[in-house]
Amino acid sequence: MAPIAIGIHGGCGTPARELLGEADWAETKAHLEQSLRAAWAILAAGGKALDAVEAAVVVMEDSPHFNAGHGAALTEAGAHELDASIMEGAGMAAGAICAARAIRNPIRAARAVMEKSDCVLLAGDAADAFARKAGLATVPNSYFTTERRRQALASLKARAARGTIAMASEAERHGTVGAVALDAGGTLAAATSTGGFNNKPVGRVGDSPIIGAGTYARNGVCAVSCTGQGELFIRRVVAYDVAARMHYAGQTLEQATDAQIFDVLTGHQIGAGLVAVDAAGHVRAPFNTLGMCRGWIEADGAIHIATHKDVERRGVAARG
Amino acid sequence: MAPIAIGIHGGCGTPARELLGEADWAETKAHLEQSLRAAWAILAAGGKALDAVEAAVVVMEDSPHFNAGHGAALTEAGAHELDASIMEGAGMAAGAICAARAIRNPIRAARAVMEKSDCVLLAGDAADAFARKAGLATVPNSYFTTERRRQALASLKARAARGTIAMASEAERHGTVGAVALDAGGTLAAATSTGGFNNKPVGRVGDSPIIGAGTYARNGVCAVSCTGQGELFIRRVVAYDVAARMHYAGQTLEQATDAQIFDVLTGHQIGAGLVAVDAAGHVRAPFNTLGMCRGWIEADGAIHIATHKDVERRGVAARG
Repeated sequence: MAPIAIGIHGGCGTPARELLGEADWAETKAHLEQSLRAAWAILAAGGKALDAVEAAVVVMEDSPHFNAGHGAALTEAGAHELDASIMEGAGMAAGAICAARAIRNPIRAARAVMEKSDCVLLAGDAADAFARKAGLATVPNSYFTTERRRQALASLKARAARGTIAMASEAERHGTVGAVALDAGGTLAAATSTGGFNNKPVGRVGDSPIIGAGTYARNGVCAVSCTGQGELFIRRVVAYDVAARMHYAGQTLEQATDAQIFDVLTGHQIGAGLVAVDAAGHVRAPFNTLGMCRGWIEADGAIHIATHKDVERRGVAARG
Repeated sequence: MAPIAIGIHGGCGTPARELLGEADWAETKAHLEQSLRAAWAILAAGGKALDAVEAAVVVMEDSPHFNAGHGAALTEAGAHELDASIMEGAGMAAGAICAARAIRNPIRAARAVMEKSDCVLLAGDAADAFARKAGLATVPNSYFTTERRRQALASLKARAARGTIAMASEAERHGTVGAVALDAGGTLAAATSTGGFNNKPVGRVGDSPIIGAGTYARNGVCAVSCTGQGELFIRRVVAYDVAARMHYAGQTLEQATDAQIFDVLTGHQIGAGLVAVDAAGHVRAPFNTLGMCRGWIEADGAIHIATHKDVERRGVAARG
């Protein structure tokens, strides 16, 4: 039977365990599992990797526990600007939106740009207008706001006023969600969605909607979705570099992703993580921070969920 | 003496010779030469590659003969939305703006984003506001309009109405300007600026402001600026792929750029071109269309200018 696999991340800015209550951690993990299972159900039924990564990301966009969709970070102006991208590794088709304000599920809009327009990337109001025209759900900007992000913004503004902004944790600042998948037909896909970071400048676009930086997929090589300080991911073309290391330098997925996270990005002293899958269905999810919400199911169906270093195994998903 | 070099392009959408008068061709070539000489003067005096590529691009942005700054393409709504990016290969720092409407010289704003903000990419109104705050010249959107672009838009809309849009020439549709340089200190830089394409959707962002797609520079490897159908350049991560072929697969600049333009992009049946320079100061400017406005000066100081297949030599620039 051809291998199938799904890998997800909910951002490398996981707060220390003591900063959230047990109920929050339990719900975060439940949503990670729900995301994995939504994607697996599609893959196990012979569905497409593209549908699987979209489904996985939608669950995390709808959850308040991740910085994407509902629960997204707030800009310095106290509003939400959302970025997302999706790529399919067979035809290397891609779609993305940036600085959108009204699309309930940004990843669906990215896919619509890929499938229903001649563009790859649409910015700002045009992205919102396109999503409306494509029949996608739109919402008031306040739909995305949660109390936790409001407090984080207030805390960051206070630190900035006191000049102690450098002490802000990754958890207060960053976050992204993403998914990668391999389907039974051998096609790879990747998807990434984010609200950026708390207190980000209005109009700032990070790596998540940039093909090659935050998202990349190519059949026969790998699919990658990144999380971390987006500016460096753009400058280092991180997602595509993982593929280039494998395709041109013959590195394995493990070598290529470890080199990126632990050599290149750690060398820049930034928090970074990614999830990636290769053409054989091996999933890797390295990170250099305190924790990264993540999960994966490889061909054997074993469900793995984690928020910090330790990994929980939660039974085995059926192949159907 | 350490080698220095400058290479520029004015887009791969050069119209057939008979479509423009002799005076227009003469002025186009004069502006290409002026662009080269502005950059060379900086490099020959021991100046920075970053200053050289900015100076070269500013000349082309100010010229009505190229699709960037004054002379930029018009969107479907009859306005201008400008994209630009710049990258310096020593620290791999980068800056970019997209969908801007009021910045007289978009490449200067890209550089300001790189040097005066924590961002790499700013979109839309925020880019314009940032440029104003950085003290850069802003202009009414109509400053960018030329009669030629107005006619091209009308012609494209007429073709679209008649259903013969596929017959539109590259010249009616695309265009970009860009520059790459090597300075005496061994630093490489690249810069790209564009109005996109005539009749483009509002909010559409192409490859020009995307680091890795339209622009890339890394010391010891190469600097690259691209022109062509931007969506494919994003999907193929073209500028960074040239560097990856050299860095990981040991290809020469000529092998890497020829593979991209004549194998990968021609295989997709799209018009494409680029200008690139390697760490030894070799310049390459391959394209697969009727013509690409371009020019280069390598270490020997010989000035080369071209609009179609044939290349003119215009004397030798002094090293100073």
